[in-house]
Amino acid sequence: EIVQVVAELLAGPKPLAGKRVLITAGGTIERLDPVRYITNDSSGKMGFALAEEARALGAEVTVVWARTELAPPPVAEVVRVESAQEMYDAVMARLPAMDVVVKAAAVADYRPVQREKVKMKKGPDKLTLELVRNPDILQAIGDWKHEGGGAGANKPYVIGFAAETGDVEGYALDKLRRKRCDLIAANDVSEPGAGFGTDTNILRLFGAEGLVESLPLQSKREAAGRIWRIALARAPGLRAVDGEAGAPRA
Amino acid sequence: EIVQVVAELLAGPKPLAGKRVLITAGGTIERLDPVRYITNDSSGKMGFALAEEARALGAEVTVVWARTELAPPPVAEVVRVESAQEMYDAVMARLPAMDVVVKAAAVADYRPVQREKVKMKKGPDKLTLELVRNPDILQAIGDWKHEGGGAGANKPYVIGFAAETGDVEGYALDKLRRKRCDLIAANDVSEPGAGFGTDTNILRLFGAEGLVESLPLQSKREAAGRIWRIALARAPGLRAVDGEAGAPRA
Repeated sequence: EIVQVVAELLAGPKPLAGKRVLITAGGTIERLDPVRYITNDSSGKMGFALAEEARALGAEVTVVWARTELAPPPVAEVVRVESAQEMYDAVMARLPAMDVVVKAAAVADYRPVQREKVKMKKGPDKLTLELVRNPDILQAIGDWKHEGGGAGANKPYVIGFAAETGDVEGYALDKLRRKRCDLIAANDVSEPGAGFGTDTNILRLFGAEGLVESLPLQSKREAAGRIWRIALARAPGLRAVDGEAGAPRA
Repeated sequence: EIVQVVAELLAGPKPLAGKRVLITAGGTIERLDPVRYITNDSSGKMGFALAEEARALGAEVTVVWARTELAPPPVAEVVRVESAQEMYDAVMARLPAMDVVVKAAAVADYRPVQREKVKMKKGPDKLTLELVRNPDILQAIGDWKHEGGGAGANKPYVIGFAAETGDVEGYALDKLRRKRCDLIAANDVSEPGAGFGTDTNILRLFGAEGLVESLPLQSKREAAGRIWRIALARAPGLRAVDGEAGAPRA
């Protein structure tokens, strides 16, 4: 009997068994020419931690990843992309099959209007770069879920991120409402231990009603586990039926 | 006697013993705001390979590095920088002490005029980014050597790189003459196996007289070894005196 209890403790529950989870991770790359690009400080660590935890909880995980510091974990499907447009295409094509979508990638808001075919040579002292808005992936997911193809189909639970400086709560709640997410995980990237690239994070989770929970400074893996537990508590439909839960770890 | 020969073969000659070598590596980061930046595909591998080979040949090596895929090798001094301006400052401050300078970093030609203090929010559909020229580090080294502080002092041997697409030879020779380098290692980054990020390179070395040698497709470490042998052959003053050569590997 003790052996059985220990085995169950080691295996852990599988509340996401049979559920399909799509997670975006990393920073997109918007090219100016064959060698130069605009990107950001995202390391991919938070998205990958969420992917590992979801897999440990039994989910079938797809990771759509752009530039990261590390390689993605060995989940069911990994899709490598570079630009915001490529990430948008990869996500939207897979959306109808998903039970949960987590948008942890840092997606460039703008891309260069023109992408030069050959490496640009040094020119004048000043240069003007024309940028144009990229598609807003989180907005597109929310709109699809509430109005578009998702209206009569699968309605995925949508978790967004808000990496901010300044009025984090204001931005996060505004973002959640505009983009129609179910949950927003917000951090102040100017706070030590909460920034891009670190192994830790300090997250505050917001739902439509306001603050859900303030997580302490903890590893991204621990934060990821807490996010899944909160999502499961708030979306009972996500929880696997009893027969699937508790299956041994693959 | 056989043991001694084998030991010498293993240790290898130390023709750069006592020489001070500065190598820049990686791609500079030019920030738009606290999380976004412009960079390039440089992995730092070529610069780090040159640093490792120089160290193996007995040199006292300083590496000034910006964003790279790997950490720098354990040379005498490593200086982490981010922007072109920071790299310029780190290099120029150390220049008078150096016997050789290798500029393997991919330095941004331009930086944003303005660097926002807080993360920029999404705004209009189109955006214009004003850029301004960065200091030209290789030009500054050549000018210093021939005209400035270097006129009466140490005159380092200067090796530049030219990562080009298109007319590689034309660009490389023009660059060598304008920037007054001693040697330019040029590659066509659109050629498979010769681009940024790869473990191999296909380099052509140019001196003031034209093509010096075309290196085959080979590992960056092998290419680095060949570059040092060619530099030593072309600059006899670089070669350590007999008493220093052949010292055992540290």
